[in-house]
Amino acid sequence: MFETAEVGNHLEKSDYKRQEPKLRTALLEAQRALAGSNFSLVLIIGGVEGAGKTEFTNQLLEWLDARGLAVHAWGAPTDEERKRPFFWRFWRILPPKSKAAILLTSWYSEPIVGRVFKETGQAELDQRLDQVVEFERMLVAEGVLLVKLWLHISKSEQRRRFEKLEADPDARWRVTKQDWKFHKRYDKFREVCEHALMKTSTGEAPWHIVEATDRRYRNLTAARIVLDSLERRVEESRTAAKPEHKPDHPKPKVNNVIRKLDLGLKLDADVFDKKLEKLQNRIGTLTRCLSKKERSLILAFEGPDAAGKGGAIRRLTQAMDARLFRVDSVAAPTDEEKARPYLWRFWRDLPRVGRVTLYDRSWYGRVLVERVEGFAAAQEWRRAYAEINAFEEQLAESGIIVRKFWIALSADEQLKRFKDRQGTPYKQYKITEEDWRNRAKWDAYEAAACEMIERTSTEHAPWILVEGNDKRWARIKILESVVEALESGL
Amino acid sequence: MFETAEVGNHLEKSDYKRQEPKLRTALLEAQRALAGSNFSLVLIIGGVEGAGKTEFTNQLLEWLDARGLAVHAWGAPTDEERKRPFFWRFWRILPPKSKAAILLTSWYSEPIVGRVFKETGQAELDQRLDQVVEFERMLVAEGVLLVKLWLHISKSEQRRRFEKLEADPDARWRVTKQDWKFHKRYDKFREVCEHALMKTSTGEAPWHIVEATDRRYRNLTAARIVLDSLERRVEESRTAAKPEHKPDHPKPKVNNVIRKLDLGLKLDADVFDKKLEKLQNRIGTLTRCLSKKERSLILAFEGPDAAGKGGAIRRLTQAMDARLFRVDSVAAPTDEEKARPYLWRFWRDLPRVGRVTLYDRSWYGRVLVERVEGFAAAQEWRRAYAEINAFEEQLAESGIIVRKFWIALSADEQLKRFKDRQGTPYKQYKITEEDWRNRAKWDAYEAAACEMIERTSTEHAPWILVEGNDKRWARIKILESVVEALESGL
Repeated sequence: MFETAEVGNHLEKSDYKRQEPKLRTALLEAQRALAGSNFSLVLIIGGVEGAGKTEFTNQLLEWLDARGLAVHAWGAPTDEERKRPFFWRFWRILPPKSKAAILLTSWYSEPIVGRVFKETGQAELDQRLDQVVEFERMLVAEGVLLVKLWLHISKSEQRRRFEKLEADPDARWRVTKQDWKFHKRYDKFREVCEHALMKTSTGEAPWHIVEATDRRYRNLTAARIVLDSLERRVEESRTAAKPEHKPDHPKPKVNNVIRKLDLGLKLDADVFDKKLEKLQNRIGTLTRCLSKKERSLILAFEGPDAAGKGGAIRRLTQAMDARLFRVDSVAAPTDEEKARPYLWRFWRDLPRVGRVTLYDRSWYGRVLVERVEGFAAAQEWRRAYAEINAFEEQLAESGIIVRKFWIALSADEQLKRFKDRQGTPYKQYKITEEDWRNRAKWDAYEAAACEMIERTSTEHAPWILVEGNDKRWARIKILESVVEALESGL
Repeated sequence: MFETAEVGNHLEKSDYKRQEPKLRTALLEAQRALAGSNFSLVLIIGGVEGAGKTEFTNQLLEWLDARGLAVHAWGAPTDEERKRPFFWRFWRILPPKSKAAILLTSWYSEPIVGRVFKETGQAELDQRLDQVVEFERMLVAEGVLLVKLWLHISKSEQRRRFEKLEADPDARWRVTKQDWKFHKRYDKFREVCEHALMKTSTGEAPWHIVEATDRRYRNLTAARIVLDSLERRVEESRTAAKPEHKPDHPKPKVNNVIRKLDLGLKLDADVFDKKLEKLQNRIGTLTRCLSKKERSLILAFEGPDAAGKGGAIRRLTQAMDARLFRVDSVAAPTDEEKARPYLWRFWRDLPRVGRVTLYDRSWYGRVLVERVEGFAAAQEWRRAYAEINAFEEQLAESGIIVRKFWIALSADEQLKRFKDRQGTPYKQYKITEEDWRNRAKWDAYEAAACEMIERTSTEHAPWILVEGNDKRWARIKILESVVEALESGL
């Protein structure tokens, strides 16, 4: 694969001088088009040590307008990063629509280096690369233009450069022990990279390998790839049909997991009181252990309006130290959230190790309300199941215990509760016009929920269906499930 | 001061039961009013260990709607927090307008505890408390409703509670060694707190001391303070006159620091080239040392359009490792930024130790463009000088080297450059209609800049005035100043 970048490409100074101004103008024009567009640019600059990743970046920064452009590079993770899933640090810096980010290290760096120095096995690397492919596919689908450049030089060229730099007193610092360690492992590095690039060169985000021996050739070629990608994307977004946003009202099956629930299940008040106290004590004890065991807990609550999500959440939070948990009530996204992939808002506030986040509604809005009301296009909610599964897998992998509750309710019981809310002063705020409107789409929501449960109930993040007509029954079932989850996870 | 909270206040169960539903309804109403308002609520719950801060918080969470409410408590700082100024962790979680945050630890915790355990001296404590007063004054002026509750119990009551909890197997964990350590120092703690509360009980953010011996009395009294504060603020924002936003066009003095600059200063190309190379090498070396010395660098650039801010920034960034610096071009705020105090956007992206941020325009927009164009009300930009000085003092105190550059330009030279930009394809993007409009207000901008320089050039964050008509002269002067700043700071 890298042979194609060891063929002696180079560019004369005169040619460079002739081509550079035009390229620069075109780059600026493309950047302006980006600034007015509905996509963002993420440019990954990978490559062999010494190939000039930083040098090329500096050149690009000179050609482009620094406004709306951020350069990122990561060293060892900070403790805030270590306490969250692998991809968190990258989600943190995702540029909003119309802006660009240059990544000098990326989600490729750690897996590749880990493999080269044999800290991780081949299977582990492949697993991570599979995640990377999923992650990138999601980014692209959500409107990120992902350009991946690989700057290549041969082993002998690398040695030549390191030696030359070391001979120069002003540049000596650029060559570190680490660099020579990499040089020794050049062949292994090349092999691992070849494998990684092959696996992740996808239709939506291919790798572009650039021969980096001649600086002029490298700069112009790499910049042209960026330019072409930008121009193509601008053109596409101009001509592409806008995805249609229309409500989707699926019909529920006569027999489905929700209808099969026995909504007559009940619990007596005195049994409830005893159980509640015991379970709350247990939850208090268990959540205090999360930190020591380096785990955290995410609980998501979904269900029809008035199903009792808030009440169940309160019974849980009563049991916990207020410093350990956070309740996230998912409302309309802010403009910063709207300008990024829809999972961004959940990533940005992920609990760190030892903490609990309870979501009153969650990322499942994508396949429930956004689907039914037509806030998301069909292709958006259709691919969301896989994206959500990948997301939750990453959470689980990093040590987060994930449980999702669907609180079911009969239509009659909902009506009763709506009326009750309207009659109780401190409950009135809970009921809005929208609740009545949503009620009219009962069947569509039920069918959407069934599909959601079917497609996203996984071993590492199962859905727990809760019979919700009797609040006491529902709350105890939820608390018991949380205890179970904590006991098996800790 | 605390004697008033040791008088035996208590509430009968029957009274509590009677009053609670009304209070709850009123609290929810007030919270709904907050949700539709243009202010945010920050509720600090301080007090003696064992007084029930968490317990009261849980009660409040039950009464209120969890949506739009976040609870925060900090332990030891994370390394990301340690690598930034003291107030950074609090800025990070400032709620946007219409939302609320409950702080179970706050900017009081570390200073008070540090003093109780004699890790810090009295002078240090007082200095921090002065900063706290400034900080809170700014928050309130920027639309934060700051409510500060102090839950108090006596020394004997504290001992009684700890002993009672320890006797209960389910609650034993609540009493830590730390708690007993605090108990031993109760008298010192009381003394330090009394001092701290006295100093920080200001007109705009007074402390409310609540006797916390009787739980029912504590809960109802504390919640009523929150309620009253909310209701008063809602009423105020209803009746208060909107601050007038009108352009302010000050006249420049005939003799001022900007006019006194010798804009004829020049540098020959060959001198420039030699100096540039030397300075850039030096800057490269020095910025690489920032991390080891636990320092960071902030450079802010202001000046008329086309003064050469971007060009100067590029000469600096060329010298640095692209992984170390970030260029922040200050554009219109996002809605998340608009919903918070105006310095928030700068706090959120503060460089961590070892890093450099270059601001192409900065927080000084408040007293320049926002003043001249009328984007800020008169009282807003008038108090901004003091707020900015406090901000920069906090930066400097935490080890950030701060330098601010005003690049001066003659009106003729600006015109020349505007025309040049229009004639050069890859420079055209730099010139907009707005630039021509701003040019018409030349005098007002100059006068605003002079006032800004006079009021915000401090020892720890000086303004450096740069003669900008000759780009070579300007760039060398800026690079030399950066070298000087780094050499004296490292």
